[in-house]
Amino acid sequence: MSQEQTKYILPESSIPTSWVNILPDLPGEPLPPLSPATGEPAGPDDLAAIFPMELIAQEMSTDPEIEIPEEVREIYRLWRPTPLIRARRLEKALDTPAHIYFKYEGTSPAGSHKPNSAVAQAYYNREAGIEKLVTETGAGQWGSALSMACQMFGIACEVFMVGISYDQKPYRRSMIETWGGTVHRSPSDLTEAGRSQASHPSGSLGIAISEAVEVAAGSGNANYALGSVLNHVCLHQTVIGQEAIEAMELAGEYPDVVVGCVGGGSNFAGLIYPFLRENLNNGRETRFLGAEPTACPTLTQGTYAYDFGDTVGMTPLMPMYTLGHDFVPPPVHSGGLRYHGDAPSLSALVKAGMVEATAVPQGAAFDAAVRFARAEGIIPGPEPAHALRAAFDEAEAAREAGEEKVILVGLSGHGHLDLSAYGAFLAGELEDLELPQDELDAALAGLPEAPSIA
Amino acid sequence: MSQEQTKYILPESSIPTSWVNILPDLPGEPLPPLSPATGEPAGPDDLAAIFPMELIAQEMSTDPEIEIPEEVREIYRLWRPTPLIRARRLEKALDTPAHIYFKYEGTSPAGSHKPNSAVAQAYYNREAGIEKLVTETGAGQWGSALSMACQMFGIACEVFMVGISYDQKPYRRSMIETWGGTVHRSPSDLTEAGRSQASHPSGSLGIAISEAVEVAAGSGNANYALGSVLNHVCLHQTVIGQEAIEAMELAGEYPDVVVGCVGGGSNFAGLIYPFLRENLNNGRETRFLGAEPTACPTLTQGTYAYDFGDTVGMTPLMPMYTLGHDFVPPPVHSGGLRYHGDAPSLSALVKAGMVEATAVPQGAAFDAAVRFARAEGIIPGPEPAHALRAAFDEAEAAREAGEEKVILVGLSGHGHLDLSAYGAFLAGELEDLELPQDELDAALAGLPEAPSIA
Repeated sequence: MSQEQTKYILPESSIPTSWVNILPDLPGEPLPPLSPATGEPAGPDDLAAIFPMELIAQEMSTDPEIEIPEEVREIYRLWRPTPLIRARRLEKALDTPAHIYFKYEGTSPAGSHKPNSAVAQAYYNREAGIEKLVTETGAGQWGSALSMACQMFGIACEVFMVGISYDQKPYRRSMIETWGGTVHRSPSDLTEAGRSQASHPSGSLGIAISEAVEVAAGSGNANYALGSVLNHVCLHQTVIGQEAIEAMELAGEYPDVVVGCVGGGSNFAGLIYPFLRENLNNGRETRFLGAEPTACPTLTQGTYAYDFGDTVGMTPLMPMYTLGHDFVPPPVHSGGLRYHGDAPSLSALVKAGMVEATAVPQGAAFDAAVRFARAEGIIPGPEPAHALRAAFDEAEAAREAGEEKVILVGLSGHGHLDLSAYGAFLAGELEDLELPQDELDAALAGLPEAPSIA
Repeated sequence: MSQEQTKYILPESSIPTSWVNILPDLPGEPLPPLSPATGEPAGPDDLAAIFPMELIAQEMSTDPEIEIPEEVREIYRLWRPTPLIRARRLEKALDTPAHIYFKYEGTSPAGSHKPNSAVAQAYYNREAGIEKLVTETGAGQWGSALSMACQMFGIACEVFMVGISYDQKPYRRSMIETWGGTVHRSPSDLTEAGRSQASHPSGSLGIAISEAVEVAAGSGNANYALGSVLNHVCLHQTVIGQEAIEAMELAGEYPDVVVGCVGGGSNFAGLIYPFLRENLNNGRETRFLGAEPTACPTLTQGTYAYDFGDTVGMTPLMPMYTLGHDFVPPPVHSGGLRYHGDAPSLSALVKAGMVEATAVPQGAAFDAAVRFARAEGIIPGPEPAHALRAAFDEAEAAREAGEEKVILVGLSGHGHLDLSAYGAFLAGELEDLELPQDELDAALAGLPEAPSIA
């Protein structure tokens, strides 16, 4: 066997000093979010009840880069830069001439990319004098990341956890509590929003968001924190892509295609936006491919429309691909991908044909994840398993074409807290959940008119 | 806040090319293991039924270093070198002038140090034409590591898992299966040894070893693999200490004390033996402190005697600290530390006063682990939580003495699959299990006479 390098790990001095803001590079005219009350463009004041001004400013900023505060970088140092790994054993197992790299965010203490934004959000809220953050969590990745971040900045953390994940993933609850946060099963009876959704006991991200926003909006010294979708969240995640570009330089290669999984879109956005800017500014021609579950196919079967971020309709209306804010996706194990909408910035890029999307059944995703684990050791989270399946297809296409294509996959987290799903898959008990087409059609009907992109 | 470096990560070229063999440096005359059948010194033939010749040679080698095969280093590259991390936030939380470093083995795919030996053992067995390895596992760390290693070398893996851990840690079972291994609850009815111990349904490492040895010894193309205790296992783990020495050079410091947890002893041995050689050869004066559970206090309350490695009495008799081979420790959550004996090499060093030992109650260990997690992010495994508690004591002593002591802790693994124990601790439901003194006295009585060390 060869002695070729496997991991490309940057020094701490390579932790980015600024985040990449994609807003100035988006195609067409900027589409503002709309106030749920008036239907008019929402301004900073519409968000001030639940977000600190610094994050609102980032949400709307047109600066191409935003400086990362030193206190945030200080926490990033606990695990960043994350490794870029050449999957040489996987390439052999797939018998592909493609070179497969993965950027691995599972080395963070919470096991995913989520702390990249959680730390930043906790920091800005503490700076604003906020004493508690309230949030939702799907698979538990975001809730645990925010709990850790809040602990590190000395503020409290309260998490509404999607019911099905709360039941499937008790270890995630213990993780949130280990870092000092508190957890509620959503829908709960603690909020009006929760009580109104008691007929959906498995819950959804949209419902949990409604609950968290309600609690935060009703409290003077508490704010809300969202783990994906919004511009400032995608922004914070761009440390991933920036590091990936520098590490690929160490490897002496550049990706022909970058693949990631898409729930709300922040992990994928954080990975691809720095590469996208290279396409726009430096003549690169990298393709970008987002993988979502067939049971929650926002980008591939959704409508581009103005829609609420939550189920009850408390958030501003955002221009995005959506399955309809009251669509409750089936309880797939990749809880982090069970969201009706997608980041407006990413949606605009898909709409403009600059980013591709594909949908992957849950069983095919776990099959890819097991093959990956047996070749590379690391057991992927169910969410990036979808990206792996899509990357395998790229690698197989490369073999058929005899192409030495360079594929970069975002491995956004490990699956240590999702092993019951692996157990079910290996026992042949993991079903591919059908998309409830009737419910989807009903949810899509009557959405506000789709905005156009010039 | 400072911009001082947090992590010291070596390049792949710094993965050691040889293992450190401590046998030539042990005090006194070498004490051979004794054949269980004859009571005479055991030779290679006594081990050939269950181990390949290369590992038997390592077990008895007096070479100070043994070369690491390139195929083994190739797998090590998937996660090694592991990080050395300066726990700056923990130092502040403890208000200590001590500098605390931890060498973190939790970045391996199995989440602990165990793959360091699992990969080597799977390699040598495959080279010898063996088609299956049979083993025991306590907390599941070793069983999952061996399952991964066997998968990577294309051989089968069968694991007897200590009953109490099998029940407490279903995710570990799924992990073993994800990598292709099979798992049995021990004591099982698959072996004579298991059936004879049905009155101990919570099981123990000693019982599970008996079961695995029985299956391996009765099969022509299967061998046995042990995850700790033996010389060749401790040897393989010395990649940890060698990397730690080089990384501490990067940090510009050298440890005054090295602290690790001790079950069978391999993680602690692997960390300290390279430093111990520095003491012996280069005039260093580092202290070494092993931490074990008060519920299984082998080094602090055991007898130095010839004893069996397993419960039923199938293995050679080894000169070691032991609580008696038929002592079944209470079911503490640190399953990896629930072993009646300790590595003969480590035992000899403790006996000679060259290594210190301390016992830590389970509750105090989890308390330290939670404080560590809230400062550094990483959630430690319950086993290294014991080492953390002992290191906190060292740090507090340094504060009282106003000393800028350098403390190095072995953080042998993460606790992602032990979160139910954290949940119990945080809910106030984790009890400090009493040592059953009557049972211990009975187990210690009648042990073969203790060997002397010149």
